Amino acid sequence: MQDLQESAALARALDIAADPTVPLGPNPRVGCVLLDAGGRILAEGLHRGAGTPHAEADALARAARTGRDVTGATAVVTLEPCTHTGRTGPCTQALIAAGIARVVIARRDPNPVAAGGAARLRDAGIDVGLDVPPDLAGRAAELNRAWEHGLRAGRPLVTAKVAATLDGRAAAADGSSRWITGPAARAEVHRLREEADVVIVGTGTALVDSPSLTARDQDGRLAARQPVRAVMGLRPVPPLPEIRGAGPARVLATRDPRAALAELFDHGLRHVLLEGGPTLLAAFLREGLVDELILHLAPKLLGAGPATVADLGITGIDEALELELEGVAMLRSPGGQSDAQLRFRPLPGAGSPPR
Amino acid sequence: MQDLQESAALARALDIAADPTVPLGPNPRVGCVLLDAGGRILAEGLHRGAGTPHAEADALARAARTGRDVTGATAVVTLEPCTHTGRTGPCTQALIAAGIARVVIARRDPNPVAAGGAARLRDAGIDVGLDVPPDLAGRAAELNRAWEHGLRAGRPLVTAKVAATLDGRAAAADGSSRWITGPAARAEVHRLREEADVVIVGTGTALVDSPSLTARDQDGRLAARQPVRAVMGLRPVPPLPEIRGAGPARVLATRDPRAALAELFDHGLRHVLLEGGPTLLAAFLREGLVDELILHLAPKLLGAGPATVADLGITGIDEALELELEGVAMLRSPGGQSDAQLRFRPLPGAGSPPR
Repeated sequence: MQDLQESAALARALDIAADPTVPLGPNPRVGCVLLDAGGRILAEGLHRGAGTPHAEADALARAARTGRDVTGATAVVTLEPCTHTGRTGPCTQALIAAGIARVVIARRDPNPVAAGGAARLRDAGIDVGLDVPPDLAGRAAELNRAWEHGLRAGRPLVTAKVAATLDGRAAAADGSSRWITGPAARAEVHRLREEADVVIVGTGTALVDSPSLTARDQDGRLAARQPVRAVMGLRPVPPLPEIRGAGPARVLATRDPRAALAELFDHGLRHVLLEGGPTLLAAFLREGLVDELILHLAPKLLGAGPATVADLGITGIDEALELELEGVAMLRSPGGQSDAQLRFRPLPGAGSPPR
Repeated sequence: MQDLQESAALARALDIAADPTVPLGPNPRVGCVLLDAGGRILAEGLHRGAGTPHAEADALARAARTGRDVTGATAVVTLEPCTHTGRTGPCTQALIAAGIARVVIARRDPNPVAAGGAARLRDAGIDVGLDVPPDLAGRAAELNRAWEHGLRAGRPLVTAKVAATLDGRAAAADGSSRWITGPAARAEVHRLREEADVVIVGTGTALVDSPSLTARDQDGRLAARQPVRAVMGLRPVPPLPEIRGAGPARVLATRDPRAALAELFDHGLRHVLLEGGPTLLAAFLREGLVDELILHLAPKLLGAGPATVADLGITGIDEALELELEGVAMLRSPGGQSDAQLRFRPLPGAGSPPR
């Protein structure tokens, strides 16, 4: 990264790539900012999902529409420009043809079909910058982590969210659970839903809670992006409530997490949020199919009531399913209940404990 | 606080007050450092428990023994000098008689019998400094918080320590629980024991775990200060293991937490550490007798096994016993298992939920 103007342009490219009106799913989110030799913005572009122009092409087209000359310009991109011809032509070719002099890249493309863009640009005499500030490189990685996970694993990324009292109860003895956590934790759940392609609950949770599974702000307004709302299991349950503006409702008529994930992946969904209950979570854990676990722990005691995870077939402490604690934080609700947030990742090789 | 030398002297006085060879119990821990006009240390003193000289008297005696003149000196003390004649004479009188010119006080004495020292000193023309740096004032408050709690509440301070998996299990289905937490969390438990006057377990835990209840370092060596080791309950259990250098073993033959605390308070014990199990903890929680709750949460899942807290007579979420989350931290064990530590305090008026 050569200067502050490029850093600022990259931060802007990351912001526009994360536009909440852009659908998630099987395509990466990408932003592009074109700078002239003086560091002024010539044009911006972003990728708006499958079948639409890539971010670089979008930015070049906007520059052309507004009569800006991009010869000798710098293109700042959140993801390495592609080299393959899919539904759109390769971006490297478009950048070369437009006379771009320098390309700053925040994240290499892990997709083997599309990779090699940096080398192709260099071969064409373009100056390529890969050395971006770590915080911006981190944001670029975070932006498409579900998409990258899909490329690596061939299945969606699975985030499990669990809320419990400090004695590990997901609900009281009579089944009531609204609300265990405070305002800040509930707002965080809505943020997680907005980041996910699909939210899954088990049939038990669908029956007991009839959850809306929408992403809303503190005033109850629907967010711009809404996840697919899925109920998984074989027990017949009433359909999820119809909500105008909510994501589509879907039934995953299986008890096999692998089959459910394959079906979702085939439909282009890359990030699953598991919201419970204990049986659903245990089924995914038993198969080693939980990639991230987020625990919201409330400063409350119940002394009785269901746990967050159903039986895993474990009898002794030495068989425990081990994870790694990645971080702890306080979810502060001024004037209200503050909860703890704990983030876990399974240890490599964990999962599939004895049945 | 007028200068850096006084701050340094106060930090030193706090260190010597916390001497681990000084018994805890019904007397406050106090340190005193005497400085000459140039800020050099003339003598140090500390209080070594009931029936021994107070810290100020100890420091004055040491100065006399070494032939140091304390006329015009500054006395830096961790607790307001007392005004009452107990087993020793009032410290204010001793300071006045010795010709001390200035007294720096880190913490006012909350004991109504002994308070008023600062005013008495001022009346005698001594310059009194009460404005000490917040971190040192905090250390002075922390040093005697169990003693102060005893003055206010007429019973010992009760800290409950709980270790659980992230799904709230205190042990596996077969009862095994060694070890749920990692090295850093276990070291923290030994630190908590060293800070406590008495550690209590219920008869169930005594039977299953036959715990040593000693405070040890990472190599298994006994700490300088050891808590009384108590088993509480009516079920007959074998005595705790005899361990050379451990605190005395004691049986609290009652199921009534209030009676147990009264008995311990009468014996001069001011800080109780509850180490389980679930029945003992529930009994104290039902009576509103837990002042601090420390949860060590391990990054493990068991899916089955006993919870950390037994039945509290709660059926609905609205009846939950509410606490306040005071802080979260990661207990890092390099190369080993890192756990989360969460600290809770009951909300005012909490406790005694419906039975």
